[in-house]
Amino acid sequence: MNERELVARLRAKATSVPGLVLGIGDDCAIFRPRAGQDLVFTTDLFLEDIHFRRAFSTPEQAGRRALARSLSDIAAMGASPRFCLVSLALPAWADTKWFDAFYRGLLQLAREHRMAVAGGDLSHAEKLVCDVMICGSVGKGKALRRDGAAPGDVLYVSGPLGGWTHKEMPEPRIALGRKLVGKASAAMDLSDGLSLDLHRLCFASGVAAKVDCEPPRLPGATLDQALHDGEDYELLYTAPENVSVPGFRIGSIVRGRPGRVSFLGKPLPPQGYDHFSRNRS
Amino acid sequence: MNERELVARLRAKATSVPGLVLGIGDDCAIFRPRAGQDLVFTTDLFLEDIHFRRAFSTPEQAGRRALARSLSDIAAMGASPRFCLVSLALPAWADTKWFDAFYRGLLQLAREHRMAVAGGDLSHAEKLVCDVMICGSVGKGKALRRDGAAPGDVLYVSGPLGGWTHKEMPEPRIALGRKLVGKASAAMDLSDGLSLDLHRLCFASGVAAKVDCEPPRLPGATLDQALHDGEDYELLYTAPENVSVPGFRIGSIVRGRPGRVSFLGKPLPPQGYDHFSRNRS
Repeated sequence: MNERELVARLRAKATSVPGLVLGIGDDCAIFRPRAGQDLVFTTDLFLEDIHFRRAFSTPEQAGRRALARSLSDIAAMGASPRFCLVSLALPAWADTKWFDAFYRGLLQLAREHRMAVAGGDLSHAEKLVCDVMICGSVGKGKALRRDGAAPGDVLYVSGPLGGWTHKEMPEPRIALGRKLVGKASAAMDLSDGLSLDLHRLCFASGVAAKVDCEPPRLPGATLDQALHDGEDYELLYTAPENVSVPGFRIGSIVRGRPGRVSFLGKPLPPQGYDHFSRNRS
Repeated sequence: MNERELVARLRAKATSVPGLVLGIGDDCAIFRPRAGQDLVFTTDLFLEDIHFRRAFSTPEQAGRRALARSLSDIAAMGASPRFCLVSLALPAWADTKWFDAFYRGLLQLAREHRMAVAGGDLSHAEKLVCDVMICGSVGKGKALRRDGAAPGDVLYVSGPLGGWTHKEMPEPRIALGRKLVGKASAAMDLSDGLSLDLHRLCFASGVAAKVDCEPPRLPGATLDQALHDGEDYELLYTAPENVSVPGFRIGSIVRGRPGRVSFLGKPLPPQGYDHFSRNRS
């Protein structure tokens, strides 16, 4: 199968979404934004033996997770996904059947969120490389940022944590993110574990946080996993006390050294996954 | 150096551009489009031992070329680049010095085109992986597509071909692309060689082409290289006979089997670089 045949297969599976003037097949995709909307952009790598292992995932699961990682960032901004670009470098072991199944998983999740695959790049490599860029839209000035938390705000997580190894069918929190628009003071997705991501949110907002109860956790997950494991596809967010938002209340934002986090009265140093340090520290 | 330190280094080098509300450091970048403009999107992989080799490039050159590949697609649409997202997975050999030099090369080219690095992703890998997504803008409905060539149109290339190995300082044809808006009937960038890319342009437009003179070529390049080598960073485009456009006239668009190309009266089958077939055919 050559590049044109692969592109033709992808075009045949492509769906259309409002605003997407031109999708797969030209030098660029063309998108016509709607007035009064901001656009948000994220990109996430999905690499063999770093973010997934062949032995532990079906190709459908791998395709779904490759898209879910980026979708979770769109959810964290309170935005709605519009379209994505998918860069894919295929190793020799990835045959047409694998390619089709990978895209089936990716496109299934894309359809659930009414977004299009608008383009990308194809190449080859020794190990599978996938990079997914998503463009989402949100009301002008309404995007949820991580730098808006203020002392007195309540701290929430969107669901049970600590189960990254169990989630073969991740469900990014797009619907919840949209509900938080105009209510949450800050939000981010829990991609690298509660302790590290909460530290980041607090650091960006110039505040500290007190976690004063155990976070909800998935069946079988230890407290340690709930505090430090990543890839939960859940959101971490803050809102003023008098604003009603869905989710699990786990603590509050306080004045203090920016980024300092305590858990049940003791310091909780950031211990999540740092993609660059190459180790769970 | 950990991920936060790397991100901090990148933020410190970041420049601002109109419309970019939020750059590096949150879950997503935020961009506020201007009314009356379409946005164009492209992404290109830049992989070690596929698109570059350490032995043949300085890190500055590698960084420049990683961005230039995507910029050339933006040029081909007649658009102006606004911002990019850079996904980068670093191997063990890439130390802080290499990382800084790679970004120096990339940011130098970004500055030349007044575009920002608005975000991306960082990871690690056995071989260097880079994927660059660019968002550009162009007047509503004005983007140059590859499917608009019509019989009778004149065929042009923007500069001498066949020199991909010589171009350590590629100069994507952004200024030329913008000049072609409202004039060219079709355009694309010559990323995979004249014979393959012209075939693609003709196929997309449902026309055939006659190349009736030798294309201009770089010093030292053979005719074969000018016809079939890729990564030229030049544009291929068509315009009606009565429309004046800059460039080198090399032939004309004719009726015929879609995608059929002849050179000096003989068939010219597509022989450029197919990224997926793993061979120059």
